[in-house]
Amino acid sequence: MATPHRFDPNFTQNVIDAMGPNVTPRNRKVFTSLFKHLHDFTREVELTFEEWTAGMLFLDEVGHMYFTSDKKRHEMHRISDITGLESLVDEIAHKHATESGENPTSSAILGPFWSPDAPFRKNGESIVVDPAPDGLVTLMHGKVVDLKTKKGIPNAIVDIWQASSNGKYDFQDPDNQSPNNLRGKFRTDADGNYHFYCLRPTAYSLPQDGPSWAMLNMLDRHPMRPAHIHLMISADGYKQIVTQLFPSDDQYITNDTVFAVKDDLVVDFVEKKDDPKATRDLTFDITLAPRDQPGDSGPAKL
Amino acid sequence: MATPHRFDPNFTQNVIDAMGPNVTPRNRKVFTSLFKHLHDFTREVELTFEEWTAGMLFLDEVGHMYFTSDKKRHEMHRISDITGLESLVDEIAHKHATESGENPTSSAILGPFWSPDAPFRKNGESIVVDPAPDGLVTLMHGKVVDLKTKKGIPNAIVDIWQASSNGKYDFQDPDNQSPNNLRGKFRTDADGNYHFYCLRPTAYSLPQDGPSWAMLNMLDRHPMRPAHIHLMISADGYKQIVTQLFPSDDQYITNDTVFAVKDDLVVDFVEKKDDPKATRDLTFDITLAPRDQPGDSGPAKL
Repeated sequence: MATPHRFDPNFTQNVIDAMGPNVTPRNRKVFTSLFKHLHDFTREVELTFEEWTAGMLFLDEVGHMYFTSDKKRHEMHRISDITGLESLVDEIAHKHATESGENPTSSAILGPFWSPDAPFRKNGESIVVDPAPDGLVTLMHGKVVDLKTKKGIPNAIVDIWQASSNGKYDFQDPDNQSPNNLRGKFRTDADGNYHFYCLRPTAYSLPQDGPSWAMLNMLDRHPMRPAHIHLMISADGYKQIVTQLFPSDDQYITNDTVFAVKDDLVVDFVEKKDDPKATRDLTFDITLAPRDQPGDSGPAKL
Repeated sequence: MATPHRFDPNFTQNVIDAMGPNVTPRNRKVFTSLFKHLHDFTREVELTFEEWTAGMLFLDEVGHMYFTSDKKRHEMHRISDITGLESLVDEIAHKHATESGENPTSSAILGPFWSPDAPFRKNGESIVVDPAPDGLVTLMHGKVVDLKTKKGIPNAIVDIWQASSNGKYDFQDPDNQSPNNLRGKFRTDADGNYHFYCLRPTAYSLPQDGPSWAMLNMLDRHPMRPAHIHLMISADGYKQIVTQLFPSDDQYITNDTVFAVKDDLVVDFVEKKDDPKATRDLTFDITLAPRDQPGDSGPAKL
């Protein structure tokens, strides 16, 4: 597995062997692999002192930004997304959830904008608190169903968050958006149905400042995410799902800068003429797996 | 090279291929290898959402500490040392420096305690500014010589820094140590000789708080470094060397927690009876390679 190289052949094993007898089996496995890959990478590119120093200072800035932004800008999370790491962690979790053969709704990455403070709203209400110029108001509705029985799940929580039509979340846009604009939690009714008003989402750029922007430039990459709606769906006795929905006609659907798009999460926002409150309609049914299944249904247990 | 796995076989290549045409060849090489190893590690251990989250928050804390300590405690550097990364970067640089067949003095890691502010002192002076209980004052002396001509190099700078007999550097111990205690730069005389007073060094523990301590505990590892003296040797027209010297009778010589010991850097502190100022004597000659050689003499160009 290790790459052939011209350096001390015992070095990596020495670092691994320095672990004492009381390391948990899981930590031993994780750190053994981490040390091997960290060292293999370093030898493979023959990392220079200057590059190593630059890398450390880069990570220092990334970590520091989390605290200087009052934990609102989680730059480490964003760097993780740009490298594909969060999508990979999500894929692994989804594989664990589905290897028993079941097929709940696909998961997608959480991203850095979820908030634990989103308010509960009533079915039929809107998450569009502040006016969104050019925003297309959408009636989103669907049913949360049990993977096994196919029956609706009452009292499930559909937690939605999205950026406004200017591509910014409430956190990022305090001059134009109230806290919890475009955020809300809805409970399904007795038949498992939910419905609320939101916006047809808008493609947006990751922030064009800070370490993640520097990294995208170094990689000669665009900063765009396809338009998307974030969802976190939970119900007692079921595995939580964190996911995203993407409009099928978005130009970044095939080149999302955080690699989160999955085919079954691409949806159509249909023109709607019969509702004075909305010009688009989105149907999205959600399938949850009962918790008695082995494995894990998605990336987030928050 | 990649490990066989049961996940999307195209995922990593997609992330690599997202790099645009204007990436420098070196960055393309480094990031291609970084993405492969980061993803291979993640798939190999099937990293969970909780582990990924914990890893990000760990790195956030590590980066933040650098700034909250007024850049005096470089925790990322220390984590790097615990994982063997700095020693590996040093080995690679030394390999580059010696592959032309030359053999300058071995290098060793810089560590987080070098200071750009160390004062110049005169040959024969002492870096022991504050009294060190139990410290064994040592006359350290030697000659800085040219690798090719074997002649002494005049006006070379020998920059030395070390912890006191309580195992702490001036930065870490402001109540007992003045700034620049146990630090100094010395210029070699016309024949290339230097001599000054320092302490026989004392083995010490890495800090027993903060993320690096948490990591050592998770790895069930001791926090000890063997006693050592840090040196950075520079001269016009020569490649700089950063190195460390270790007393041969130290109990941590074979299990340094930052993996920095090399055989030719292990030295004897000899008992001394003819000098009222010192009870130990250390001879250490240093060989510098001229700058016209290809490659690079050591880890630091500061």
